[in-house]
Amino acid sequence: MTLDNRWWSEAYTDEGVAFSLQVTEKLHEEQTPFQHIEVYQSTHWGKLLVIDGCVMLTSRDNFTYHEMMSHPALFTHPNPKRVLIIGGGDCGMLREVLKHPGVEQAVQVDIDEGVTRAAQQFFPELCESNDDPRATLLFDDGVQYVKDAADGSVDVVIVDSTDPVGPAEGLFGEAFMRDVHRILGDDGLLVQQSESPILHRDSILKELHGVMRGAGFTQVVTMQFPVCSYPSGWWSATMAGKSGDITQFRRADAEAKPFRTHYYNAGIHQGALAAPEFCKELFSDQ
Amino acid sequence: MTLDNRWWSEAYTDEGVAFSLQVTEKLHEEQTPFQHIEVYQSTHWGKLLVIDGCVMLTSRDNFTYHEMMSHPALFTHPNPKRVLIIGGGDCGMLREVLKHPGVEQAVQVDIDEGVTRAAQQFFPELCESNDDPRATLLFDDGVQYVKDAADGSVDVVIVDSTDPVGPAEGLFGEAFMRDVHRILGDDGLLVQQSESPILHRDSILKELHGVMRGAGFTQVVTMQFPVCSYPSGWWSATMAGKSGDITQFRRADAEAKPFRTHYYNAGIHQGALAAPEFCKELFSDQ
Repeated sequence: MTLDNRWWSEAYTDEGVAFSLQVTEKLHEEQTPFQHIEVYQSTHWGKLLVIDGCVMLTSRDNFTYHEMMSHPALFTHPNPKRVLIIGGGDCGMLREVLKHPGVEQAVQVDIDEGVTRAAQQFFPELCESNDDPRATLLFDDGVQYVKDAADGSVDVVIVDSTDPVGPAEGLFGEAFMRDVHRILGDDGLLVQQSESPILHRDSILKELHGVMRGAGFTQVVTMQFPVCSYPSGWWSATMAGKSGDITQFRRADAEAKPFRTHYYNAGIHQGALAAPEFCKELFSDQ
Repeated sequence: MTLDNRWWSEAYTDEGVAFSLQVTEKLHEEQTPFQHIEVYQSTHWGKLLVIDGCVMLTSRDNFTYHEMMSHPALFTHPNPKRVLIIGGGDCGMLREVLKHPGVEQAVQVDIDEGVTRAAQQFFPELCESNDDPRATLLFDDGVQYVKDAADGSVDVVIVDSTDPVGPAEGLFGEAFMRDVHRILGDDGLLVQQSESPILHRDSILKELHGVMRGAGFTQVVTMQFPVCSYPSGWWSATMAGKSGDITQFRRADAEAKPFRTHYYNAGIHQGALAAPEFCKELFSDQ
């Protein structure tokens, strides 16, 4: 069948695949100095946030992404107190990070204030921890922020970026990664969204592993999980550690987590670390 | 954006979501006594098999589905020799089952010979074990076949059906399940495709768990895995056991499997058994 104009579509033409949601209304449209932001009301997926024509999130399915980009790293680091989020302007990552009572400060650095303003208006549930006294929201260049930050001043860095083109391109480069490595403490961890296992294994994922190792990280692992609204519906987060074995995590703490999640739990964490056979060589190299 | 006529789309209007592939040619179209079959050439996903307007499989991504519907059950049963596949006319499940050297007979019962003929022509790789001396291909009503089969005559039953509407509706009912329970041996296992965790938890999945228990199965577990070309990109298989703990499997045998897979391995098996937090109560009930 052909989809009529009740459908909003994102075509990923490089791979000949498209994802569509039925929408009833465009709620917001804005060209910021950095990006084109749109918000739609969908029929079954709540609201839809689009940047430069790509789905960023829907109200209904963003939980898998936000939870899997935050909790595995925070339960892998032995005692994460200082968290830095690069990107993440929708504030959903900040909310997940601040669920951890041990976190003492979480700094979010997104270049585009427009994303956060749109999130506050249309996705208030993602912004419910923005006023937490431990939170700092900065609207600035993440690459420069990391360059200027002090050595060993952060425990976990989460790179919640758009795809590695446009404003986010620098966040996938080795110069940035070397700075991240430098500002992390001894047990420091970096986690970065790393696109689709089935679409990007031999391109973005392979390159990212190489760049992270080149920047000095001793271990790099990729976790897989579903994100219905991203190309292929199958996504990944890649975690890089300065020391220790990052395939191990504080399982007892994860099992006794003092907060609610919708996807993440200790079993899911362990499961996400299992590499599909076709990704085994890349994802689980030690 | 709007998708033009170079795209083939499946709209799942009940949930306001659609999946599209860019196609270059319709290779086949046929109305059988049971179903409407189409085959398309896609730009990036190989060939696309469509039944009654729904994606059945693509050349590129069918491996997750076929492997996760077969190998977990076959590595859970202590010694599976006699396997029955209900549906599965594309023969991809049969191929996976026959990778297990211990399997002595695999019977495939699909009501529609048209599907197998189309698979032989357009997906020959899925049919490469059709001539295995252990294989029997029948084109008949699976519900009736199970009704007529002898008590305790099968070790593993795999229900590889279309959605629970139309020809496949009976395969989700309790009368059928009771017959499956009866024809299974003491350690017998049933595995059934059970749709999307995010779309069907409270409908098909919940009902299926109830029906399986009602039919006498002592344990029912749902495994999750990606299937890019099915609605939401996130799919499940539900396994029901007559006895024993089906969350345990022959891990050493899975680790030493004498055949190649593309997705499945022991770690993936274990990981698929982990229930997402929002499905925990249903998926992992003991």
